Amino acid sequence: MHKGCVIRVGDLGEFGVIRRISGRLPQGSGVILGPGDDAAILEAPDGRVVVSTDLLIEGRHFRRDWSSGYDIGRKAAAQNLSDIVAMGANPTAIVVGLGLPGEASAEWLDALTDGFRDECALVGATVAGGDIARSDTVVIGVTALGDLGGRTPVTRSGARPGDVVAVAGRLGYAAAGLAFLSAEQGLALPPAERTTAEAGSAEIADEFVAAHRRPAPPYACGPEAAGLGATAMLDVSDGLLQDLGHVATASGVRIVLDPGSLPVPEAMARLAAGLGADPLEWVLTGGDDHALAATFPRDVPLPPSWRVVGQVSDADGEAKAEVSGRAEASGGWDHFRE
Amino acid sequence: MHKGCVIRVGDLGEFGVIRRISGRLPQGSGVILGPGDDAAILEAPDGRVVVSTDLLIEGRHFRRDWSSGYDIGRKAAAQNLSDIVAMGANPTAIVVGLGLPGEASAEWLDALTDGFRDECALVGATVAGGDIARSDTVVIGVTALGDLGGRTPVTRSGARPGDVVAVAGRLGYAAAGLAFLSAEQGLALPPAERTTAEAGSAEIADEFVAAHRRPAPPYACGPEAAGLGATAMLDVSDGLLQDLGHVATASGVRIVLDPGSLPVPEAMARLAAGLGADPLEWVLTGGDDHALAATFPRDVPLPPSWRVVGQVSDADGEAKAEVSGRAEASGGWDHFRE
Repeated sequence: MHKGCVIRVGDLGEFGVIRRISGRLPQGSGVILGPGDDAAILEAPDGRVVVSTDLLIEGRHFRRDWSSGYDIGRKAAAQNLSDIVAMGANPTAIVVGLGLPGEASAEWLDALTDGFRDECALVGATVAGGDIARSDTVVIGVTALGDLGGRTPVTRSGARPGDVVAVAGRLGYAAAGLAFLSAEQGLALPPAERTTAEAGSAEIADEFVAAHRRPAPPYACGPEAAGLGATAMLDVSDGLLQDLGHVATASGVRIVLDPGSLPVPEAMARLAAGLGADPLEWVLTGGDDHALAATFPRDVPLPPSWRVVGQVSDADGEAKAEVSGRAEASGGWDHFRE
Repeated sequence: MHKGCVIRVGDLGEFGVIRRISGRLPQGSGVILGPGDDAAILEAPDGRVVVSTDLLIEGRHFRRDWSSGYDIGRKAAAQNLSDIVAMGANPTAIVVGLGLPGEASAEWLDALTDGFRDECALVGATVAGGDIARSDTVVIGVTALGDLGGRTPVTRSGARPGDVVAVAGRLGYAAAGLAFLSAEQGLALPPAERTTAEAGSAEIADEFVAAHRRPAPPYACGPEAAGLGATAMLDVSDGLLQDLGHVATASGVRIVLDPGSLPVPEAMARLAAGLGADPLEWVLTGGDDHALAATFPRDVPLPPSWRVVGQVSDADGEAKAEVSGRAEASGGWDHFRE
């Protein structure tokens, strides 16, 4: 296709963009009124609604040269849906505010929309509405809603001394992928000039780069944990240690992680060796995988999706999360760091 | 205060910003869980929840040199709360995604937060949660939620031939204020060099500039209209004529406005004369006042807050909104126009 055939969102106009997006979005049974009015209307059978919002900014949360539109849509939706399941709720819908440069292609927008749609479909949710605006860079505001189905919500503040700490989902995968992409950019070697070791890293890195581009949150484990009687839970978005620190502070307890029980897959260890990095650092401080971390009473038999990685004890005057036998780690992600 | 004393959001860090914002936000009785967890939890007593989202981008939807942080907060909240009442619902809460440059002052952020809070307080809602991210320009994503209280939602598609068209709230005020600010910037004359006519315009303009900075949506009129049996309703955000065009299309009817019944206050007419503008154009195509436009069965006695401005008739093959005796107008706002 020659360049003149590319349709830009600036050519479609606001209503053209809205029509194009809406046309790709089926509505779920829980959506009473979908896109096209002042507001959407969703069923809230529980009588309570769970809501979470996130803002993703090009260049900070994603790069259009590192991720496809489809992957960005998947990731943006995943990040919010994960917050809903981390309360023990089932996501029902998302609404999306999109800031788009006029030069973005309609094809890219279609892919982004499909990404939102397909990630929502994994949990039976839909894109129920949105707003678009022109912007110099891509800005994505996603708000997800969910229904508790009669369950008690699982907050950050319920961890009790004697509980176990368990995680579901992947840890450090996205951080490993991002470290590889960043190192590759720093080297800027064309594939032909790479050493064998570097080429080997690239092959190993595939899985982690894919994880950076598209997280795979363990959605079903959130409501599952609520049903099992989890005392506290959150979505790991800023790094396991920092996020468990939030649980420790909110609950007034100390959380001690056993480094031997933290999963470091062999491929991750090999990639880290190639990059001169510490894989445990990725596991402890990497965000973006949207694993779930929860505390459970010790006597609760946990299904295989949950892996025990630590213990909850008395705060002893200092509520915090730490790794047994390890000096204070560098913490997780602060979105205001440069 | 010397410059070294100004606290920047970049100095506060992500969690400092969140603490600072949360500390200024009281929570309402309908908020089961407010800011600080993965998601907020709100009461949804109706069993349905109304949700609307908007994205506001600095330089497109607001300018920090034309509006205070407080006014931007009020306006951003108003825009969304208005979408909720336009369905006939009562707003319960908003959640806010904030993109902030590191150099923004903490004082400006406080003012913005207070603006969100105070606008929400007008309708008994609160800021129940949010997200912050660093951004080169200010980006504000607001999502509002509401409860229908057992009422039938009023959509855009229910207008029927024979209905009357009525509006509540102000029309053209914000457009007049924006036209004045734009003209003033174009002139760039210091006050002392203004002609008497220009100085007179500036005085008249105050009310309209204030309306541009901070809309005053007729919140109570939304649920009121639903209770009165409105057949269709929307929030006028892109201009009365264009927005009624959406009602006409969705309902498959023709809407004819009577220009003589459209309110053009004397001060607006004088300001328009000073700027060489057509005040009726502001009234017909100006957004940002967040008036409500609705259709009602002819026999419904309307309270004084609603002013009849037109009639609904058969589409006769072309569903559209038009002004009686006036050629096709230029339409309203398209957010993808440059």
